[in-house]
Amino acid sequence: MPANLTEVNAHLAEIYDLEAIDAVIGWDQLVMMRPLGGPLRGEAVGTLSTIMHQRWTDPELGRLLDKARDDVASLPEGDPDRANIEVAIRERDRLVRVPTELATEMSRLSSLAYGVWVDARKNDDFAAFAPYLEQAVELRLRYVDCFDPEPHPYDVLLKQWDLEYTTEELTGLFNELKAGFKPVIAKVSANPDAVSEACYHGNFPKAKQHAMFVEFARAMGARDDAWRLDETVHPFETAMNMDDVRITTRFYEDDIASGFFGTLHETGHGLYEDGVDPALARTIIGRGGTLDLHESQSRMIENLVGRSRPFFDYALPIFQRHFPEEFGSLDAETLYRGANVMRPSLIRVEADESTYNMHIALRFEIEQQMITGDLKVKDLPEAWNAKMQEFLGIMPPNNSDGVLQDVHWSTGSFGTFVGYTLGNVIGAQLWTLIQRDLPSLDAQFAAGEFLPLREWLRENVHKTGRTYGTKTLLKGLGIQQLDPEPLRASIAAKATELYGS
Amino acid sequence: MPANLTEVNAHLAEIYDLEAIDAVIGWDQLVMMRPLGGPLRGEAVGTLSTIMHQRWTDPELGRLLDKARDDVASLPEGDPDRANIEVAIRERDRLVRVPTELATEMSRLSSLAYGVWVDARKNDDFAAFAPYLEQAVELRLRYVDCFDPEPHPYDVLLKQWDLEYTTEELTGLFNELKAGFKPVIAKVSANPDAVSEACYHGNFPKAKQHAMFVEFARAMGARDDAWRLDETVHPFETAMNMDDVRITTRFYEDDIASGFFGTLHETGHGLYEDGVDPALARTIIGRGGTLDLHESQSRMIENLVGRSRPFFDYALPIFQRHFPEEFGSLDAETLYRGANVMRPSLIRVEADESTYNMHIALRFEIEQQMITGDLKVKDLPEAWNAKMQEFLGIMPPNNSDGVLQDVHWSTGSFGTFVGYTLGNVIGAQLWTLIQRDLPSLDAQFAAGEFLPLREWLRENVHKTGRTYGTKTLLKGLGIQQLDPEPLRASIAAKATELYGS
Repeated sequence: MPANLTEVNAHLAEIYDLEAIDAVIGWDQLVMMRPLGGPLRGEAVGTLSTIMHQRWTDPELGRLLDKARDDVASLPEGDPDRANIEVAIRERDRLVRVPTELATEMSRLSSLAYGVWVDARKNDDFAAFAPYLEQAVELRLRYVDCFDPEPHPYDVLLKQWDLEYTTEELTGLFNELKAGFKPVIAKVSANPDAVSEACYHGNFPKAKQHAMFVEFARAMGARDDAWRLDETVHPFETAMNMDDVRITTRFYEDDIASGFFGTLHETGHGLYEDGVDPALARTIIGRGGTLDLHESQSRMIENLVGRSRPFFDYALPIFQRHFPEEFGSLDAETLYRGANVMRPSLIRVEADESTYNMHIALRFEIEQQMITGDLKVKDLPEAWNAKMQEFLGIMPPNNSDGVLQDVHWSTGSFGTFVGYTLGNVIGAQLWTLIQRDLPSLDAQFAAGEFLPLREWLRENVHKTGRTYGTKTLLKGLGIQQLDPEPLRASIAAKATELYGS
Repeated sequence: MPANLTEVNAHLAEIYDLEAIDAVIGWDQLVMMRPLGGPLRGEAVGTLSTIMHQRWTDPELGRLLDKARDDVASLPEGDPDRANIEVAIRERDRLVRVPTELATEMSRLSSLAYGVWVDARKNDDFAAFAPYLEQAVELRLRYVDCFDPEPHPYDVLLKQWDLEYTTEELTGLFNELKAGFKPVIAKVSANPDAVSEACYHGNFPKAKQHAMFVEFARAMGARDDAWRLDETVHPFETAMNMDDVRITTRFYEDDIASGFFGTLHETGHGLYEDGVDPALARTIIGRGGTLDLHESQSRMIENLVGRSRPFFDYALPIFQRHFPEEFGSLDAETLYRGANVMRPSLIRVEADESTYNMHIALRFEIEQQMITGDLKVKDLPEAWNAKMQEFLGIMPPNNSDGVLQDVHWSTGSFGTFVGYTLGNVIGAQLWTLIQRDLPSLDAQFAAGEFLPLREWLRENVHKTGRTYGTKTLLKGLGIQQLDPEPLRASIAAKATELYGS
């Protein structure tokens, strides 16, 4: 290896280490830290962020990367050394293009606006939040101006998250999804009492939920000596590296479904990190892939595995063993149906598979209009409610359960919502390959054998980390383009099964 | 404030932040991380250490501190701005005097030797550890050579921990302790069955121990919204800052005493950090004081509070409420006596108050001889065992429970053991002041009122953080010099009470 490459890799390894530390610190803050620790923790995190920014934007690293670009140019695409340099150059470019002053303003507004948003949502007070959102939009426009022009300014925001699909491509995708899901939503709305989640209600002490959830995560492939499962308010997954994975969930003692499916979802994320080739440790590509690929994994484990009919043949006795009083007299079919209730609802994070992507379509359209200036912040509630009526046939009774429900905009995060729908679509496309390659999948799930699936995912998706972008990775598997049909078809079939034809 | 001072304080605030991050990471590693996370965590910690070292030794910080020294010279002693600069200059000097090459060698040997020590202790194989200890001693000698000569080379090692007492002063102190405790040890050895700890043996589920220990820590002053108590193998306390304190203990399910007194001990450490004036946050002096002062606080809460007779009038009903079957028929006197069993034993960390300082005297003498070259590593076991026989009248049956028992030397740490004895001595001296100022202390303890003590400690010891060295702080309270008599007298009185005269 050229000396220059050795040197640049050492720089990147340090950045990897700092990001790992940032991950532990962030996990600790949400899971372990007592509330009074917040203000001084904020200072410490600020210092760490500054140091990471300094390391990334260090001109010396820029020079080394420039030279390294030539060193790796002759390596084949997909070679880890080449990918590491290329991804690092892209990441660094994104940071150096933004003037320090703008970056500071964005981060200052973000921490300020977050607190305002929390209060505004609590008090159903959109007017209090509006000026901060206006500033956030304005700062994002200045951010967009730092980059080369794209066909649509929203494209810049998508690219900042390494999402490779353009606004135009996504517009086509969402139009198909809206058309495709319309009859499904009409069907389930017409027959709202066909299925009930009541079987998941009862009395479930936290510690017992924890023990059961760990058992399921382990069956999916979580390694006991490398993973943790802890309690949090908003479930998330984070990983220091492939050998230190932390998932979190919530434990509602009167409703076990939320924590259970949350655990499966985060297990899917965790398996991605866990499955990255250890040889990629301490490189920029040595983490799980992009937003959309990551979400394809979490939604796959949650929905395509955890809400499938065969899964419940395996799950029922485990539910019964941990909670004999609550599940002793239930059958697998009841649990399956209760896990697949479909009905239009107000809150995205609680939405079912048939309606979820409509929540995203709404945000995708509204975000674009905000960025182009076609929609003023003051007109947001009205626009939101009109689309809720159009896409889902329901009207938010207030802004807290409407336009104020998501944290994302308060932190200046635009363009990430579409990652969730991309995850759903891609997950279903991958699933067609998995069903082809693993013909006994249903029987395996019914028997609690998830490791063949896990190995397929590791081999085809996880192990290369961030070596490939989404499109390249999918093409390598034979998926030439996005296709919402597998997703639509599977959910439509489920809707017909449960809600009648 | 002069602009230069503002600038240097910003540098020091960043160092404070990095140290806080290091503390969270270290806590996580010992308390939360799964075992497989170890190797890559080691890399991340190494990178963080390097960055902290770079920040400290940055020549720009050196120039700023030099100028700041003049800026603060006219401020009164004890002024936080002055103390912050002076302590920072001292810390920085300690780091810049050691060549990077030596620092690297020391840290490399330390991580290597630790693993060797773990195995050597497990296998009772001193010969395997000896070469590493020889190297550790040699590196320490090179370290000593980096500093101005002192009357005794061991003085340099004491000063590296901010311990202000010289080898000569400590020799005098230990001679007094050895003479003073000799009759006490003879007394308790002659009547070994007078008192029994059997009342603490039984069946104590971890979760229940945890709940009870938290209740005691809270009574001592631990704030629920700023503290955590978790399980670990070797109890310790760490704090990110005064509002984020973490204590740990162990839970032996057949013996509650170890975890209980461990909790009280770490609570004492935690109260020190918790009691530092919040105005000192993000300064170098904004943490609890030196090793010896810190240990005076932990031993005070553990021994002078937690092993006192009145304490058990308060504690008994709490023990009985949490463990009715185990403590329902016991009385406070039995618990008190069981908490004060005295007998010569092999292991320092399990030693009682009457024998503890003899374990330290042994290490103090042996460390000096190693540093002067009067004692070769190969002759250590023999020297150790001879002193055990001389000081405590017992002979280790093997090296695992003898010379191999402590982790300290494996990590190259020499000169810290004496901090424990200094803590015992200083704690007892402070106690005479506390008894003078708080005449109702016994009645308060019996009633579970520990906050007057906590306020006294905050006002007289904690709040100034690291502003003062030990000697200056004690002089400010009227304690002109070390005096082992209060310690000796209190333990001798207890020995007479429990073991007869």
